[in-house]
Amino acid sequence: MDLPELPAKVAPDSLTGLLDGRWAELRRSVREQMASTRFRDPIDLDRAAHRDQVLDQLRELAKTDRPRLGFAREYGGGDDIGGSVMSFEMLGFGDLSLMVKAGVQWGLFGGAVQLLGTARHHERYLRAIMDLDLPGCFAMTESGHGSDVQHLRTTATYDPDAREFVIDTPERMARKDYIGNVARDGRLAVVFAQLITGGQGRGVHAFLVPIRDERGAPMPGVAIEDCGAKAGLNGVDNGRLTFSRVRVPREALLNRYGDVAEDGTYSSPIESDGRRFFTMLGTLIRGRVSVAGSAGSATKRALAIAVRYAERRRQFERPGDPDEVLVLDYLAHQRKLLPALATTYALHFAQEELVAELHDLQSAEGVDEQRQRRLESRAAGIKAVSTWHATHTIQTAREACGGAGYLAENLLPSLKADTDVFTTFEGDNTVLLQLVAKGLLTSYKEQFSDLSPLATARFVAEQFVGAVIERTAARKVIERLIDASPARDDEDVLFDRGWQLKLFEDREEHVLDGVARRLRRAAAGDADPFEVFNDAQDHVLRAGRVHVDRIVLEAFVAAIDRCADPDARALLDRVCDLHVLSNIEADRAWFLEHGRLTSARAKAVVAAVNDLCKRLRPHARTLVDAFAIPEQFLAAPLLDD
Amino acid sequence: MDLPELPAKVAPDSLTGLLDGRWAELRRSVREQMASTRFRDPIDLDRAAHRDQVLDQLRELAKTDRPRLGFAREYGGGDDIGGSVMSFEMLGFGDLSLMVKAGVQWGLFGGAVQLLGTARHHERYLRAIMDLDLPGCFAMTESGHGSDVQHLRTTATYDPDAREFVIDTPERMARKDYIGNVARDGRLAVVFAQLITGGQGRGVHAFLVPIRDERGAPMPGVAIEDCGAKAGLNGVDNGRLTFSRVRVPREALLNRYGDVAEDGTYSSPIESDGRRFFTMLGTLIRGRVSVAGSAGSATKRALAIAVRYAERRRQFERPGDPDEVLVLDYLAHQRKLLPALATTYALHFAQEELVAELHDLQSAEGVDEQRQRRLESRAAGIKAVSTWHATHTIQTAREACGGAGYLAENLLPSLKADTDVFTTFEGDNTVLLQLVAKGLLTSYKEQFSDLSPLATARFVAEQFVGAVIERTAARKVIERLIDASPARDDEDVLFDRGWQLKLFEDREEHVLDGVARRLRRAAAGDADPFEVFNDAQDHVLRAGRVHVDRIVLEAFVAAIDRCADPDARALLDRVCDLHVLSNIEADRAWFLEHGRLTSARAKAVVAAVNDLCKRLRPHARTLVDAFAIPEQFLAAPLLDD
Repeated sequence: MDLPELPAKVAPDSLTGLLDGRWAELRRSVREQMASTRFRDPIDLDRAAHRDQVLDQLRELAKTDRPRLGFAREYGGGDDIGGSVMSFEMLGFGDLSLMVKAGVQWGLFGGAVQLLGTARHHERYLRAIMDLDLPGCFAMTESGHGSDVQHLRTTATYDPDAREFVIDTPERMARKDYIGNVARDGRLAVVFAQLITGGQGRGVHAFLVPIRDERGAPMPGVAIEDCGAKAGLNGVDNGRLTFSRVRVPREALLNRYGDVAEDGTYSSPIESDGRRFFTMLGTLIRGRVSVAGSAGSATKRALAIAVRYAERRRQFERPGDPDEVLVLDYLAHQRKLLPALATTYALHFAQEELVAELHDLQSAEGVDEQRQRRLESRAAGIKAVSTWHATHTIQTAREACGGAGYLAENLLPSLKADTDVFTTFEGDNTVLLQLVAKGLLTSYKEQFSDLSPLATARFVAEQFVGAVIERTAARKVIERLIDASPARDDEDVLFDRGWQLKLFEDREEHVLDGVARRLRRAAAGDADPFEVFNDAQDHVLRAGRVHVDRIVLEAFVAAIDRCADPDARALLDRVCDLHVLSNIEADRAWFLEHGRLTSARAKAVVAAVNDLCKRLRPHARTLVDAFAIPEQFLAAPLLDD
Repeated sequence: MDLPELPAKVAPDSLTGLLDGRWAELRRSVREQMASTRFRDPIDLDRAAHRDQVLDQLRELAKTDRPRLGFAREYGGGDDIGGSVMSFEMLGFGDLSLMVKAGVQWGLFGGAVQLLGTARHHERYLRAIMDLDLPGCFAMTESGHGSDVQHLRTTATYDPDAREFVIDTPERMARKDYIGNVARDGRLAVVFAQLITGGQGRGVHAFLVPIRDERGAPMPGVAIEDCGAKAGLNGVDNGRLTFSRVRVPREALLNRYGDVAEDGTYSSPIESDGRRFFTMLGTLIRGRVSVAGSAGSATKRALAIAVRYAERRRQFERPGDPDEVLVLDYLAHQRKLLPALATTYALHFAQEELVAELHDLQSAEGVDEQRQRRLESRAAGIKAVSTWHATHTIQTAREACGGAGYLAENLLPSLKADTDVFTTFEGDNTVLLQLVAKGLLTSYKEQFSDLSPLATARFVAEQFVGAVIERTAARKVIERLIDASPARDDEDVLFDRGWQLKLFEDREEHVLDGVARRLRRAAAGDADPFEVFNDAQDHVLRAGRVHVDRIVLEAFVAAIDRCADPDARALLDRVCDLHVLSNIEADRAWFLEHGRLTSARAKAVVAAVNDLCKRLRPHARTLVDAFAIPEQFLAAPLLDD
């Protein structure tokens, strides 16, 4: 193929600047803080000692300004939502138990108090939360309900005589489960429960419920269990909460979106219970975004270890060469690591864009509902794709390091085990992709309040008028590239960015229209709407997936357009090609089936991926060094001299 | 599609009989022994306690006849090689640390003494090995050499004056690494080292080297390190060995394939160093076969847990239904578990056939070299495919159980972590698939002695005359089915077994011929043979993979042919369809590119997989129950009432 030669050597710094993006200064200062920490990875700590270490680290963190970033300035916060999320992303380079525990305290718990509560809660709690004087929990998930949190079973019944809510766990499956900070450290919990007042259910609301007293003993009526050993994240004290008619004052209701007057009268600015609840959930989106970000950090760390190892590990002789072959010189090894590395770049830029949008939207006055829905959808999609990518890539990195990769001292085991739950917590990935598809099918007009197939199928039947491709950032750049893409159909078209962009757009449009047609056709008959939706579920999930693929690619393209350094830009162009073409390669059955690729061109895609692996192999080390992971987090003995 | 309706309910027992196969009686008795053991899964043991428990279990096991099965009757063994491998497979239902530790003691260590040693070693050691009075190690892998063990660096230099070998670790990367039983329990090690006598290297040989005295102290000159925490298998005490000019008597050489006389004269029945070493390795194939078997057991266990959970876990309401929907009723959930379950059946039958062939070949008098090479190739291929399937399926099972699947008490975390290393130990899967392809390209005529690309490319250039499809078991059945396959090209052809078999054969033939053409073309020019081979490496690996796919399918077809119960047979027919069609679905890009499937038929394959998931969903529980896993190994709290 007739691609320009890459520069012999590109300086990692020239890439780091672009990767660091809008919050570059914050990232640099966090790197410095991390580099000076005395804590090391918990290779050989038992669970109790690991929990101790993480709590110590959390206390150190509380002394910095990072936990404050996401809170309002009037309570001592930093009013920097994006910076707050970036700071969680950076924690992902270290022990992920710390990231999760910090996320529970300042993201989920603190975030709920801030975003669902009102001034009375803010004044009373926010400073203590930021300072870690008040460790807390975010008690939403129950043993019986994780994805469908609208149907939680915990109840909060208002007693107007006592002016109190009675929090109760009516059955075993209604206990709060897997809740971080519960088993050992938490004192106050934000508990999500079905609000009942005047004998009427009002949907799920959040309540502040003390679970431990100052000495750490469980409060009366609160039963606490420890979830015990987990696959990973054992520095986080996950636990279970069961409430036996626990009374909290009326003011314990986080009442931004719904309130109960002393006499029990309910009021809310949002009429529908479902819509209100999903509006509440929507404000809590930062957690999901942070998980995607730290999944990216863990993936980068695993790739950095595996690439460095593959540049020193030799195996099998090469005829006529005194040295054995570096394993990164094998095509099979390149294919394991380099496409994953390229996609890690793509997801990095998509994440950066997502955080910026979150920041701008949540920092703005007023509410743009459609934009908020779209943000929620993108957060869901990028979280699903990033965390699956992490699981897959870290697994591959482990295998690429052989037996050495299986030893705890070489860090990959904990990266794998800790991130494993990311695919199912903060939203199960399958459910999230379904949410993305639903947003596309309904053009975000419908609240995400009802995930039921019936509602979706009906809505699609009535309102869907054809897929609308809403371009993300850098719309003009994308349009220019697409307009300039060659009409000619020669081999080099594979490397034409406009052609690639068009191909992704076209795929999204076609899949989405296909799903809509299918749902509409079936909804017109007398078929059971559940069956209709369920029979198309793989198709629905695919629609979500190819949408995310498109917005991720656009983010990468926009980032390259921002890149001023010509060498860095040349390198990123090839990285982007590898990302795109390995995506097309994996999905080329679809492109063939739908006449988008000929057999000859599909085979050329496979050859192009091999060619790009070879071209990028000399730059692999540069590409992982550009992540600028503090060296202490790469201090694995398999990289020792 | 016009498939016959399945019986409403098939008895699991009718499947179990078929699954249990030739060693059914042994399997039943092992199940009984396992069911009565007092040991439980090590959910919350620290490393030391876990190692203690596994050693205790190993001692209990030593009291049964199972460890003796694989040894010769004249030393108290059972002369039942297949039974021995089956017994390891059954251990895979329990704590995998026990399986691995037993495999080290009786498979690798004991096996090496039996198969590489001669009467003097057998008489002196075998009984003590079987009784566990002499715990031992198999010290092959070095820090610097895992896959390319022909180039190990440890030396064994013969000193004719003292009539001793001097075992030495000349450099840090030559230390023995990741060796089971080293860190705590092993006393004697089979050490693989480059034999040097009369100043001449003779290639890798095995030596018996004491590493600890009776009180457990390291022997003089032997430095022992503990590998410490690992991702999993923490009940096994892996460690490192460094030898500083350690002297062992001349008789310490396991001298079946090569001997050193008192004066230092070397003799061997096999002239080539490489061929001799790979003949030695070939005898040790049982370990690889056992790993594939126990990977299968762990996969079955994970699927049994995930399917049972999916039949009780409900999430989201279904309009007009008071109960929420069982998650196994969702197509997306079926797609996660059921194709994996179908392939687990296929691999089970392939494994059964492999064990039978191993048993028959190693029990026979004399050596059939070609058949031995083919067996080695199949063992390599099935090990690679089975262990990757285990990694993928157990990961999916974990995700399918959400947060509950992340808790150690629910067993999936240890299944994942313990089996993770299976893809890279007992042969790295990528290297193994390459070995498979090489065997096919050279028709097993060449020893596996030289994996170098140069040798392969030259050999292919000179000798390859076209792919030869050697059918496995039940040749007649396969031929009959292929001959009877319809010429018509209607939709139902997808379910025709003969058509499926032909498709897999044809794919193998085409890929193999393509690789050969590519290597030959390049070898004819003046290209660097390493580059030629390396550029085609993905193609080579694919040839290995599609070959394994074909022999696995044939084994499934042969098993169905053996099934006498009509209901069980009807069910297995559909399970086999799901296995085949999900394989085709995943690879349909290739079939499209090569004109083997039209677009319409490729889309029909996707629809057929969905349809089969729906048909098999009511039988999912039956299919996992048929594995007859002792209930105590499924006692996970997430399945509690």
